[in-house]
Amino acid sequence: MIIVLKPNISKKQETTILREIRKRGYRPHVMRGVSRIVIGAIGDELTHQSLETLANVFPQIVESVMPVQKRYKLVSREAHPQDSTVAVRGNIIGGKKFHVMAGPCSVESETQLMTTARAVKQAGATMLRGGAFKPRTSPYEFQGLGEKGLKLLAKARKETGLAVITELLSENHADMVAEYTDIIQIGARNSQNFQLLIAAAGTGKPILLKRGLSMKIEEWLLAGEYVLAHENSQLMFCERGIRTFETYTRNTLDLATIPIIKQESHCPIVIDPSQGAGRADLVRALCKGAVAMGADALLIEVHPNPAEAWSDGTQQVSLEVFASLMEELRPIIQAAGRE
Amino acid sequence: MIIVLKPNISKKQETTILREIRKRGYRPHVMRGVSRIVIGAIGDELTHQSLETLANVFPQIVESVMPVQKRYKLVSREAHPQDSTVAVRGNIIGGKKFHVMAGPCSVESETQLMTTARAVKQAGATMLRGGAFKPRTSPYEFQGLGEKGLKLLAKARKETGLAVITELLSENHADMVAEYTDIIQIGARNSQNFQLLIAAAGTGKPILLKRGLSMKIEEWLLAGEYVLAHENSQLMFCERGIRTFETYTRNTLDLATIPIIKQESHCPIVIDPSQGAGRADLVRALCKGAVAMGADALLIEVHPNPAEAWSDGTQQVSLEVFASLMEELRPIIQAAGRE
Amino acid sequence: MIIVLKPNISKKQETTILREIRKRGYRPHVMRGVSRIVIGAIGDELTHQSLETLANVFPQIVESVMPVQKRYKLVSREAHPQDSTVAVRGNIIGGKKFHVMAGPCSVESETQLMTTARAVKQAGATMLRGGAFKPRTSPYEFQGLGEKGLKLLAKARKETGLAVITELLSENHADMVAEYTDIIQIGARNSQNFQLLIAAAGTGKPILLKRGLSMKIEEWLLAGEYVLAHENSQLMFCERGIRTFETYTRNTLDLATIPIIKQESHCPIVIDPSQGAGRADLVRALCKGAVAMGADALLIEVHPNPAEAWSDGTQQVSLEVFASLMEELRPIIQAAGRE
Amino acid sequence: MIIVLKPNISKKQETTILREIRKRGYRPHVMRGVSRIVIGAIGDELTHQSLETLANVFPQIVESVMPVQKRYKLVSREAHPQDSTVAVRGNIIGGKKFHVMAGPCSVESETQLMTTARAVKQAGATMLRGGAFKPRTSPYEFQGLGEKGLKLLAKARKETGLAVITELLSENHADMVAEYTDIIQIGARNSQNFQLLIAAAGTGKPILLKRGLSMKIEEWLLAGEYVLAHENSQLMFCERGIRTFETYTRNTLDLATIPIIKQESHCPIVIDPSQGAGRADLVRALCKGAVAMGADALLIEVHPNPAEAWSDGTQQVSLEVFASLMEELRPIIQAAGRE
Repeated sequence: MIIVLKPNISKKQETTILREIRKRGYRPHVMRGVSRIVIGAIGDELTHQSLETLANVFPQIVESVMPVQKRYKLVSREAHPQDSTVAVRGNIIGGKKFHVMAGPCSVESETQLMTTARAVKQAGATMLRGGAFKPRTSPYEFQGLGEKGLKLLAKARKETGLAVITELLSENHADMVAEYTDIIQIGARNSQNFQLLIAAAGTGKPILLKRGLSMKIEEWLLAGEYVLAHENSQLMFCERGIRTFETYTRNTLDLATIPIIKQESHCPIVIDPSQGAGRADLVRALCKGAVAMGADALLIEVHPNPAEAWSDGTQQVSLEVFASLMEELRPIIQAAGRE
Repeated sequence: MIIVLKPNISKKQETTILREIRKRGYRPHVMRGVSRIVIGAIGDELTHQSLETLANVFPQIVESVMPVQKRYKLVSREAHPQDSTVAVRGNIIGGKKFHVMAGPCSVESETQLMTTARAVKQAGATMLRGGAFKPRTSPYEFQGLGEKGLKLLAKARKETGLAVITELLSENHADMVAEYTDIIQIGARNSQNFQLLIAAAGTGKPILLKRGLSMKIEEWLLAGEYVLAHENSQLMFCERGIRTFETYTRNTLDLATIPIIKQESHCPIVIDPSQGAGRADLVRALCKGAVAMGADALLIEVHPNPAEAWSDGTQQVSLEVFASLMEELRPIIQAAGRE
Repeated sequence: MIIVLKPNISKKQETTILREIRKRGYRPHVMRGVSRIVIGAIGDELTHQSLETLANVFPQIVESVMPVQKRYKLVSREAHPQDSTVAVRGNIIGGKKFHVMAGPCSVESETQLMTTARAVKQAGATMLRGGAFKPRTSPYEFQGLGEKGLKLLAKARKETGLAVITELLSENHADMVAEYTDIIQIGARNSQNFQLLIAAAGTGKPILLKRGLSMKIEEWLLAGEYVLAHENSQLMFCERGIRTFETYTRNTLDLATIPIIKQESHCPIVIDPSQGAGRADLVRALCKGAVAMGADALLIEVHPNPAEAWSDGTQQVSLEVFASLMEELRPIIQAAGRE
Repeated sequence: MIIVLKPNISKKQETTILREIRKRGYRPHVMRGVSRIVIGAIGDELTHQSLETLANVFPQIVESVMPVQKRYKLVSREAHPQDSTVAVRGNIIGGKKFHVMAGPCSVESETQLMTTARAVKQAGATMLRGGAFKPRTSPYEFQGLGEKGLKLLAKARKETGLAVITELLSENHADMVAEYTDIIQIGARNSQNFQLLIAAAGTGKPILLKRGLSMKIEEWLLAGEYVLAHENSQLMFCERGIRTFETYTRNTLDLATIPIIKQESHCPIVIDPSQGAGRADLVRALCKGAVAMGADALLIEVHPNPAEAWSDGTQQVSLEVFASLMEELRPIIQAAGRE
């Protein structure tokens, strides 16, 4: 910790602060600068009691307190210098091969799901997404088919061989969802629902952790740390847009997270352009950018008839658009050195 | 719904859209404007399938689709023109009397809690806050005393007569928490954890719903709608700061929510200046503003020794500061026409 | 400056960084911590070349570089511990007396301005606001009456004795505007138009500096520093709302700026609730909050007929609303210890 | 305009509103919906007085007022369905060929500029950027070499044949800057300094308009409209990151603006990854994303010795990094169908 004192501090005030620092288990190191004194407090910030309260308790003496250690460990690149990969039914996410997870926002019916599954498989997707439990802003909106939806996903997997990814909404459903799915998705609204993260980690299934709407990179990494700290190393981060002042798009997709996650962490990074923009007409371009920047996979909402989708119809692309998009991505995947 | 068409639409394109509108159960009403056609689609937006997908599916024809109905009902002022109040152990929140809920961020020990409870009672608070289950950004931070903390809160209530408010973090704890507390707090990170909201509503206890870090007013009201729709009418909204670009404060306290919630809803509004600023030195001024603007209650973090608090020590005020703050609030409470 | 090195740095890498620090005129002070080395670089950050580039140039060695000095001087409370005040035609802003500046968004006609001026004077305002040069988002909107508007303001001052405040939009108008006005307003869109700030400072008139839509507190103070550094000490800060994700209001009025500016600076702080909310129905409550929190003055948009205002009609209050608002503010002004 | 009335409006209230609508030159069209009345007000929103004030003036009757027309004309794709291009010294921006503008943040010396110019030319850039007048957050930071810097840019152009782009900060410098530069850059802080935009447009030089830190797409397009409305059709938009809550990067680069500007406007779109991230280590990936998504050009900060740059050293890349970046971009430029 670095403690910056106010200018013109008396000897007595300095002594007070040095005593407080020692009391909390740190060794103080005084530097007398040009306009103020700066104290380095040497000790492990993760085990000692925090010094940040000093600015509150001694507002006349302490100007600011700045941490120097990073707060995350297991997800960090320092802890695991090589890229880690996630294996799902023979597919390796985070390796040389680029993956596409595609499917409807909500599972609505057998016909809808099977039609979509076959089409996305044919176009080159390796995983099928589909919501069975849906977090909806309003209690009056469609909340998902529940276990019936999970069963349909399992059926589609059986027929097509696609791996399945679906969202977990409740701790109480963790075992049930894990029974049917290959990857558990934690949605943006639950990205700091730590009880849910712990329950999901406990299933042993790979976890795809979406970034919250106003989550800082550090908070996202720390949410991921909950998964690894609960002994599940199969973690992927998924950027899906943050909330900003802009209203033209539903969210602002922060593609800089691709190099940032690669730099700070060893876990794969997946991009969701459908939620990221909230507009089907922007999905194509955002996919291309994500691929070129080094994302490990895409998560795309595809629906056989977006006009009649039971949720998020404005952002789902049709089967035809998806197929042509996959074609357009090919040269960029190659240019990015992936397969 | 209002559907705005692009300029220079052909008769055939117009017919296509009219057919789609009728197919979804709405009656179209065409208005030919100066530069484009606008269609009013008459029907109940809450029961019919949404028309918003039309802009996605017919991008050459439809420019934009705008809803006209509000999406929330039970929490709205329209549904309940009079102010509603919440009764807690003889205290009426939302009436003439102004209330202060005060106590430590986390329950740490019997001494800490009892000292605080007696002091805040003496200074004029009517309710005791204290976290037993704590949502922490990092898995390595103190997570709360759990049920032991709840028992200490109940003990403090018994001794002081203060009502108790504490946070619920997990659906699985709903019954246990309800057994000890008078008000269930739903924290900012769980404000759209709908499963938790439903579980909390089910206990029948009054609910204090904090605004999420990046929650729009409409989303906040709709999250409240989940509580009322699950047959619990004892709802209070609590503004605790939103996340913005500013870093001087931890959050930006949006005090305009006071008149806004009063206008849009009948439920009481509570202000949390401690989370709102994340800095103890700003709490005093923010409390004054909240009172003058018509808030129904304050939720303030108070600790006997903020320097050694186990969580959020930078924003908790000491017992002395709290007592003098309560004195300073008196004339403003009066000027605002409250008791 | 504090330079945090990465973990596991070699002796040679350390030497490299120490040499770079010395080369830039700082004296390095090494602290060997638990997981990494931290270097305090002692020297005046305002005169020496910045060290922040080290993280860019030596990404393998340097993790982060943190400044410890504040970047502003003349506007800071440290430089001038007492409150400074601004004198305008016998009115002292920043002293015991609370002031209200009121008037139309735009000066539209003699009748409109005179009617408003008389009414706001009668209700207790001491200053008249009115835009003669208007910055408009679209080139097709009313851009103000220009010098004709300035003449009308001067006329209204002559008749009513109210001091005048109006916005300066162009360096080339600085002398002309200064000829007619008592206070020069720098608008939010120009808050980092440093050439304009320098031109305004040069007139010697008091300056009211609005906060930019996405301006951090530090940047605002530094923009104010431009005024003081160009030898004009008559500076006031004016909070008028920042841009956030919320769309219910046009901006989010950050009332915490009142205690923050009082803490960091000696200059008066003025609140503009009209721009702050962009909705006339919230002005009343926001004014009350601002007064209770210790603002020195309010800047309120008032129009004799808001429905037909040539600009910003949604946020201007009528003469009647303004008069009753002034009545309601009286007890709160008293409770806040002002006159 | 669409005017939504509150539920349960009396016949008399309806008549009042209809009269007001007619008074403002619109023809009202009443639609009786399920829960409320909606009125379409037919007329040209750009020429008639706005109806938006009705919600302020008749708050008991009017719930909301929604515009249906777009506010920008000349920059819109509707006005000019084909892509427009900007010709600069034989280079066509917005056509088949992809362009790179590169150079130092500030012009510092002849050696620094010439070294950079030769190196970026060799690596494939076609334009040289460099700031002669610098807008700096603090008055104590380096403000640029002024006209001396412009002369150096002209000299570098003469030697290398690169076109020159530099920022205009003051209306009073418009003619001087236009004398030396090929493209005038309007910076983010001045993006709504309309007087500056008008002065820049008046020079007849191509204009590169950066997006403001918190500028909505619509406001950006309208700022561009000021240029076209003042008879300069040589306009390019440049995305350089917006301000959000994230602090890992200095700004959040909104790459979705590439397809959005292409959709809404005919003008070229340029991406500035240096300002966009504020970190040299992210520039490489962001460039790749921009190219893949269809940007027309990149604007990159390059410095022969970033460690000793006089401004923004943390975000400038070295000559070596720039050269290797240009190599890496080649296959992506091809994959995107450009040259």
